[in-house]
Amino acid sequence: MHFLVTAGPTREYLDDVRYLSNASSGRMGYAVAAAARSRGHRVTLVSGPVELVVPPGVRVLRVTGAREMRRATLREFRRCDVLVMTAAVSDYRPAARLRGKIKKGRPAWSLRLVRTPDILTACAARKRGRICVGFALESRGLRRYALEKLRKKNLDMIVADSPTAIGRPAAAVLCLDRTGRDLWRLHASKAAIARRLVRTLEARAAAAGPAPRG
Amino acid sequence: MHFLVTAGPTREYLDDVRYLSNASSGRMGYAVAAAARSRGHRVTLVSGPVELVVPPGVRVLRVTGAREMRRATLREFRRCDVLVMTAAVSDYRPAARLRGKIKKGRPAWSLRLVRTPDILTACAARKRGRICVGFALESRGLRRYALEKLRKKNLDMIVADSPTAIGRPAAAVLCLDRTGRDLWRLHASKAAIARRLVRTLEARAAAAGPAPRG
Repeated sequence: MHFLVTAGPTREYLDDVRYLSNASSGRMGYAVAAAARSRGHRVTLVSGPVELVVPPGVRVLRVTGAREMRRATLREFRRCDVLVMTAAVSDYRPAARLRGKIKKGRPAWSLRLVRTPDILTACAARKRGRICVGFALESRGLRRYALEKLRKKNLDMIVADSPTAIGRPAAAVLCLDRTGRDLWRLHASKAAIARRLVRTLEARAAAAGPAPRG
Repeated sequence: MHFLVTAGPTREYLDDVRYLSNASSGRMGYAVAAAARSRGHRVTLVSGPVELVVPPGVRVLRVTGAREMRRATLREFRRCDVLVMTAAVSDYRPAARLRGKIKKGRPAWSLRLVRTPDILTACAARKRGRICVGFALESRGLRRYALEKLRKKNLDMIVADSPTAIGRPAAAVLCLDRTGRDLWRLHASKAAIARRLVRTLEARAAAAGPAPRG
């Protein structure tokens, strides 16, 4: 199979040096890329700015902002069989990016933020048999939130996680299938969670047969 | 001598996952810490979140936000002879930090930002013979801006740099003394710039004699 994995945060610049971002380390995505590669799959990794080593044999596309990640992911999506969207894409970006460096002076000001396009929704809308996996990160009501995201975005699987896992090597996650049924729960290293996810996807692809493309 | 070096960006969180930051890699500060240590000086490094290896023999204090960096730097400042402030401290932070994760939903909103306290000014105001070195990063009118910062903050030396050096291993810098006179210009690796700066500071300390403390 051909895995397309997105990983890391995005950075949304307000001037040449300052940006809005989030604490994603990219570890889960890189672990999924490594796990899929070690099972012999083709892997394309769309990575936001992180300081991780790309697993051998994985093709990487480095991006910075949400709009750049969207372009790269939509372009690669056509060629993949499975999309695993672990990236923590900024939901908002500054409405304008200034050239140079904003002068400090004002004691307070308001930064106008606008929504970024939803990458996973855009991919899932044109999936035609491809498998789309999302990640849900939520501090409260995790299962309910994950279910809502699964349905709203028309996903085939979702892995729900709490913010305590950010930047850590381990996590406690819950994996739901497209009907909202619990597939498994796992409290383990991100590498072990990634291996479990890849095997689940292999089984699902085998059961579904070859995916129509286009 | 005892060097206190600050390095890296700070992160100013708006909720449990999102933050405002800047593109500083911390390389210049880590290079100054390494150069001072290799010349036999005592070195304390106050470091924002970066992915660099701490040079052997350097004591490191890890911080996240501007206010935390300020507390650590002011506390350590009393025990140092030289402060080299390379950190790219966020000038602004969100007026409030929410618990959990802000819900996306609104197509646009405004994030209220307030000034963070100026660490270098606070240190220089109580320097009593200690040497305070600043860094100025500016896209236009670099020399004029550096001079203004030198005077306003009552610094002993300033190194002026352009944003093109961010995250890069090399830079083209200009070093000014407290009177605004050019000490040297150097287009070189950050390691070479750091060594030059440390030697300049050694010479200055030798010329000035032992610093009064308190």
